[in-house]
Amino acid sequence: MGRTIFIEELLHKPMEETSVEIVERKGRGHPDYVIDGASEAVSQELCKYYLKTFGTVLHHNIDKGLLVGGKAHPVFGGGDVIDPMYLVVAGRAVTRVKEEGGDRPVPVGTLSLRAIKAFLKANFRFLDVERHVIVNYMIKPSSLDLVKTFEAGREMPLSNDTSFGVSYAPLSQTEHLVLGVEADLNSRQTKKHLPEVGEDIKVMGLRKDHRITLTVAAPQISSLTPDLDHYLSVKDEVKNRIEDLATKITPQDVDVYVNTADNLAKSIVYLTVTGTSAEQGDDGNTGRGNRIHGLITPCRPMSLEATAGKNPINHVGKIYNVLARQMAEKVYREVPGISEVFIKVLSQIGTPIDHPLMTDVQLILNKGVPLSHVRGDVESIVNDELASIRNISQALIEGSIPLF
Amino acid sequence: MGRTIFIEELLHKPMEETSVEIVERKGRGHPDYVIDGASEAVSQELCKYYLKTFGTVLHHNIDKGLLVGGKAHPVFGGGDVIDPMYLVVAGRAVTRVKEEGGDRPVPVGTLSLRAIKAFLKANFRFLDVERHVIVNYMIKPSSLDLVKTFEAGREMPLSNDTSFGVSYAPLSQTEHLVLGVEADLNSRQTKKHLPEVGEDIKVMGLRKDHRITLTVAAPQISSLTPDLDHYLSVKDEVKNRIEDLATKITPQDVDVYVNTADNLAKSIVYLTVTGTSAEQGDDGNTGRGNRIHGLITPCRPMSLEATAGKNPINHVGKIYNVLARQMAEKVYREVPGISEVFIKVLSQIGTPIDHPLMTDVQLILNKGVPLSHVRGDVESIVNDELASIRNISQALIEGSIPLF
Amino acid sequence: MGRTIFIEELLHKPMEETSVEIVERKGRGHPDYVIDGASEAVSQELCKYYLKTFGTVLHHNIDKGLLVGGKAHPVFGGGDVIDPMYLVVAGRAVTRVKEEGGDRPVPVGTLSLRAIKAFLKANFRFLDVERHVIVNYMIKPSSLDLVKTFEAGREMPLSNDTSFGVSYAPLSQTEHLVLGVEADLNSRQTKKHLPEVGEDIKVMGLRKDHRITLTVAAPQISSLTPDLDHYLSVKDEVKNRIEDLATKITPQDVDVYVNTADNLAKSIVYLTVTGTSAEQGDDGNTGRGNRIHGLITPCRPMSLEATAGKNPINHVGKIYNVLARQMAEKVYREVPGISEVFIKVLSQIGTPIDHPLMTDVQLILNKGVPLSHVRGDVESIVNDELASIRNISQALIEGSIPLF
Amino acid sequence: MGRTIFIEELLHKPMEETSVEIVERKGRGHPDYVIDGASEAVSQELCKYYLKTFGTVLHHNIDKGLLVGGKAHPVFGGGDVIDPMYLVVAGRAVTRVKEEGGDRPVPVGTLSLRAIKAFLKANFRFLDVERHVIVNYMIKPSSLDLVKTFEAGREMPLSNDTSFGVSYAPLSQTEHLVLGVEADLNSRQTKKHLPEVGEDIKVMGLRKDHRITLTVAAPQISSLTPDLDHYLSVKDEVKNRIEDLATKITPQDVDVYVNTADNLAKSIVYLTVTGTSAEQGDDGNTGRGNRIHGLITPCRPMSLEATAGKNPINHVGKIYNVLARQMAEKVYREVPGISEVFIKVLSQIGTPIDHPLMTDVQLILNKGVPLSHVRGDVESIVNDELASIRNISQALIEGSIPLF
Repeated sequence: MGRTIFIEELLHKPMEETSVEIVERKGRGHPDYVIDGASEAVSQELCKYYLKTFGTVLHHNIDKGLLVGGKAHPVFGGGDVIDPMYLVVAGRAVTRVKEEGGDRPVPVGTLSLRAIKAFLKANFRFLDVERHVIVNYMIKPSSLDLVKTFEAGREMPLSNDTSFGVSYAPLSQTEHLVLGVEADLNSRQTKKHLPEVGEDIKVMGLRKDHRITLTVAAPQISSLTPDLDHYLSVKDEVKNRIEDLATKITPQDVDVYVNTADNLAKSIVYLTVTGTSAEQGDDGNTGRGNRIHGLITPCRPMSLEATAGKNPINHVGKIYNVLARQMAEKVYREVPGISEVFIKVLSQIGTPIDHPLMTDVQLILNKGVPLSHVRGDVESIVNDELASIRNISQALIEGSIPLF
Repeated sequence: MGRTIFIEELLHKPMEETSVEIVERKGRGHPDYVIDGASEAVSQELCKYYLKTFGTVLHHNIDKGLLVGGKAHPVFGGGDVIDPMYLVVAGRAVTRVKEEGGDRPVPVGTLSLRAIKAFLKANFRFLDVERHVIVNYMIKPSSLDLVKTFEAGREMPLSNDTSFGVSYAPLSQTEHLVLGVEADLNSRQTKKHLPEVGEDIKVMGLRKDHRITLTVAAPQISSLTPDLDHYLSVKDEVKNRIEDLATKITPQDVDVYVNTADNLAKSIVYLTVTGTSAEQGDDGNTGRGNRIHGLITPCRPMSLEATAGKNPINHVGKIYNVLARQMAEKVYREVPGISEVFIKVLSQIGTPIDHPLMTDVQLILNKGVPLSHVRGDVESIVNDELASIRNISQALIEGSIPLF
Repeated sequence: MGRTIFIEELLHKPMEETSVEIVERKGRGHPDYVIDGASEAVSQELCKYYLKTFGTVLHHNIDKGLLVGGKAHPVFGGGDVIDPMYLVVAGRAVTRVKEEGGDRPVPVGTLSLRAIKAFLKANFRFLDVERHVIVNYMIKPSSLDLVKTFEAGREMPLSNDTSFGVSYAPLSQTEHLVLGVEADLNSRQTKKHLPEVGEDIKVMGLRKDHRITLTVAAPQISSLTPDLDHYLSVKDEVKNRIEDLATKITPQDVDVYVNTADNLAKSIVYLTVTGTSAEQGDDGNTGRGNRIHGLITPCRPMSLEATAGKNPINHVGKIYNVLARQMAEKVYREVPGISEVFIKVLSQIGTPIDHPLMTDVQLILNKGVPLSHVRGDVESIVNDELASIRNISQALIEGSIPLF
Repeated sequence: MGRTIFIEELLHKPMEETSVEIVERKGRGHPDYVIDGASEAVSQELCKYYLKTFGTVLHHNIDKGLLVGGKAHPVFGGGDVIDPMYLVVAGRAVTRVKEEGGDRPVPVGTLSLRAIKAFLKANFRFLDVERHVIVNYMIKPSSLDLVKTFEAGREMPLSNDTSFGVSYAPLSQTEHLVLGVEADLNSRQTKKHLPEVGEDIKVMGLRKDHRITLTVAAPQISSLTPDLDHYLSVKDEVKNRIEDLATKITPQDVDVYVNTADNLAKSIVYLTVTGTSAEQGDDGNTGRGNRIHGLITPCRPMSLEATAGKNPINHVGKIYNVLARQMAEKVYREVPGISEVFIKVLSQIGTPIDHPLMTDVQLILNKGVPLSHVRGDVESIVNDELASIRNISQALIEGSIPLF
């Protein structure tokens, strides 16, 4: 069966040549990231349990969640969390499987708590999972019909919805920079040299022509920060570190601002007990953070689907976003003559996921490159990627593809 | 003080001339819409209470929420909700105000419950607010610093964050069509003629060149739908109605599909007791639904900010999205020679909201129209809109600006 | 099959001749009463639904619950609830019944919300069920085995547990008085003359020889109490009313104290918006309030079982307390020569409820009355009551037997 | 200031001479015990924190709570918890203390979670606190007035309520036996020899003249119980162990029944994953379990107050029950000629706790012992105990007095 693939030229300026660009990343400790991580952790745990127990991944969708901020009292050199955060994930999952000799229950609750707490422990150094957060789940039994749909497509899963995935390549310099800054500040190496820097790093990049302004929020861990002098010196180091990094990523001018809400006159600094602003009132919702490439990019096409928590077998709102991204990167990397590539993959409910309703490829070509020169190679890559779409499911179960 | 306004020409094809367009609307009864509505209802109620009691709107931000689906048992001619839905909004608000003679508490809890229930009653005909939904709130006292910032800017509020708003004009035909279909199916008139049609209308529009495919999900109210024949005839009427409407909105070919997940062989039809899929397991999160113009448009620039629930005084994630939309529409409407206009408004935390860090205007001009011909008029509109930005706050408090 | 009935003489002084007696009643608006009422309302609603739908009452047990107090701001002439109360009932119920053509779900959630809210509306005049309280339920599906046990005993239900019921007759004068005071202050007539008096009446009676001290807490409704003078005059009227009532119930000396925690110097008076102290932080638990005769009587034998919320078909922790009370009253009323009667009924799990493991009757006889004179009549009453035990179930379903 | 102490003779038969006695104990793993333990753990943790931080214990009352049972799937040799239990404590506490330089928050939430989880870890061997239970708290700030009352009585605290404590001595043989059986089955030694036996031991003792029937429920840990034979042999060992123990405690005939709800024909045995029936649906409420001597004794005077969770400084519902018990035991132990002693201590709100409104002592005297012979010694003991009442508070903070 052939596939519907549209390939067209787009007569736009590439992103680097536009005059204004806005890019944002909510780092590993941001409330929206944390609740995304919790939703996804539950999905991965369920996948592994279903696979081990029943030999196949069963239907689930945990793509909603809420992290309610707590109340904290950080002080230089110490402090404590006063009221814990409250984290709840919501969705549906197969909770009971018919077997010979009766139904077999799936320990969805126990698995969810374990998965979320393991994620939190791995994600934070100073958040005490037992005292600083209350973890809950509201997961209902999957409706029978969805389960059926799911099982029917065991060979090639059938799309669960009419939805789409969207992505593009390559990343711009600003995008690389914003990603890089957060990655660096949350890297193992930086945590070793600057353990004071908490995980809730937020980076906003604004490019105006060839000048990039980076606004970075980077909390400090109160127990490691004995006084204001220490705080300020760490803040300086963070700034220097970012400036150094910037010179390696982009030749453009980069202005760096750190913790702009600080107000020394009023004794306001960005101090946290745990490393996340959720300890003091900031809330998060699943699907409100970074898109598939780890960024929020209002100047680019974006999907509003939450990838976190959706099942990786037939939920196209997850799979097609990963797919679009992988296709775009491969096309850009392997086909010469292309300046930028935008890909949308559309599903139709109930049809095999390797045969989307349509794959739409838009290309900004290098000057002088005709579409006909690249069309064949692009189509071939798109087809290959669709044919091997199940690899994505496998990689998602293993957690080897970053989603946000 | 002058404002930073960039106006540039964009050498893109207007949306109508592109080959693929995807547009979606989650209608009034969709779980994401409902929880957006609940967040916004609480904000409006708080605004009114603060104004009446203290003469000014105080700080709050209720832009997170979770609607956990229930369990229902709709049957032709009846049925019931088995397990109610659970709705919770989260955020912060000023809960206590210093007055002579002691603190005065703000009844945030009581106001929230009232606002959300009133919204639900107004939004649904067959949802029994007392039996079908459990309403909760997790609203913490605002941190003192935010309150201070807020009060300090009483003359012209100071931006609460480094954020941005994004919008464009005009809407494409597909966009008009998607909006129009939901509006019609949820209109008072249609509810009179086809009361069976529930509120959870979801419309997905896909345009391929000059052919638009509309995929519409429209639940029916079980108590009003005595049998399958009735269901099918209402479904036919819905399809006809949409086809008729389409001919009034666009000359393009429009294919209409209604309730494509129905499967008569398996007795699967889209029946609900209450009019929303949330009754049977579908969940919602604040900020996951429609953007400022009521649509999800992955081919267009979009903000990921939730407008719902943010305070309308200094929360630029709300105000600047409304502003960008109003500016874009006014520019398109009033300045001849413009084919499409895209506007981004960027804030800087702590500066007056009528002086954003930057307003970026991108114009697709009609053939032969030089930028210089329109620049002055556009700039003037942008300046006027910024100068009268406080009107937006007023209108938001009154609820007269649709946000999603 | 014969029954095991022990009847023995008890050589105790009757209560009226003892030197110290303590009696307490938590009135209709007390947090413990309210959560008892909520548990029982759910049980009655389930009974009615099961009966109507399946022709028989199915297993359930809702005898746990928690009422978490809210926060209120009552002021003379007005005030409001700031944070609503939170009420949750917990237990188990049959949620799904096998029928031809598939399972039929029981709308346990919807029924619970309706029952609890209806109870609250009937119980309070100034509590706005929609704004002042959040109602939730945590009711799990009954385990299969219990359901089986239940159905197996359809002719004569089988005892669900090894438990017991305890009661006695007659009530002492102090007991009559404590019951009477609350009944009067919460009567329709008093609410008409003194609408200011809230429902959360608490009466503590202490008898020392022939002198009874009544300590009464009686909140006033803030919106009906314009000022301190009004408050004090209502408080006086309450005191007078109680003193008048006392003379009708007992010839003993009665001292009456009302709202002893008031402290005018510190402006502390007992004012409520809603009529219950739960509005301002007082919590309640099911089964912590009055025993079967409406009183807490530490000088008397008492069962610690909660009668509220248990199913009225085979839950002996409920039925046998009612039974013991009815037996004791009938014995005292109908058999001459008895001064006081104490009855304990013990069950054995799995045996028919009309054949308890043992019924133990202790009698304080009037001077000169030998046990042999009354034994036959007492045994006959006990046997009759056991034989007609199913009438109790019927009356409990109809709600015609007060339980607390 | 003198104290009001009534001492009178009671012309009753001692318990051992009565014909029927009922005694029950809910062991360490019973849902009601667990939630009592959680409430009390929070109170102790708060006491320690207040003492360490502010030099004095501040007001709190956590005497309400709810444990909602989960869902488990125990199988011979393994199994798992499917849905975790949910545990919430409720009450009030001082959450903020005025200090020079501003308010100091008390980390009530963090302390509560830690205390409850530590209690659960110490109480169970096979309950995984992180996966098998969700712990929450609903503790509101103490109302200002209560705080004031509290501080005012720093020298000798003032009674927080009009309430009473009740106890007696000595324990009967049946009472000793019921206590002893649970203590033994939950002892370190037994857990070593019979690790299969879970913590949720429930013992019901019924004495008819000189024959005691013990009905014991003792769950087994599923992972340690490979098959039915093993289960039955452990059950036998439990029975033998109890019978052996009984001969050491009482010369009366003792019949022992273990797990009477087992039904081998239907494959029903008492198997648990964690050791508590709360894993599979059994719920608990604070204050519904054992009274001050660790027993439920419907034939004895009892207080309905929950001792668990109340503050040990001025909450007479806690302190006076401990006091009554200590007084009764001391009187019985030290004053010859007394057969049984019953003590009630009554408070009056706002008066020093060492001067109750009344202490009522009832004595069953040995044959031939006149009241005048013992009155002086009894009064002296009562006075001494009241004078040293603050020792009780100290011991309660340290957790060295068992309460339930």
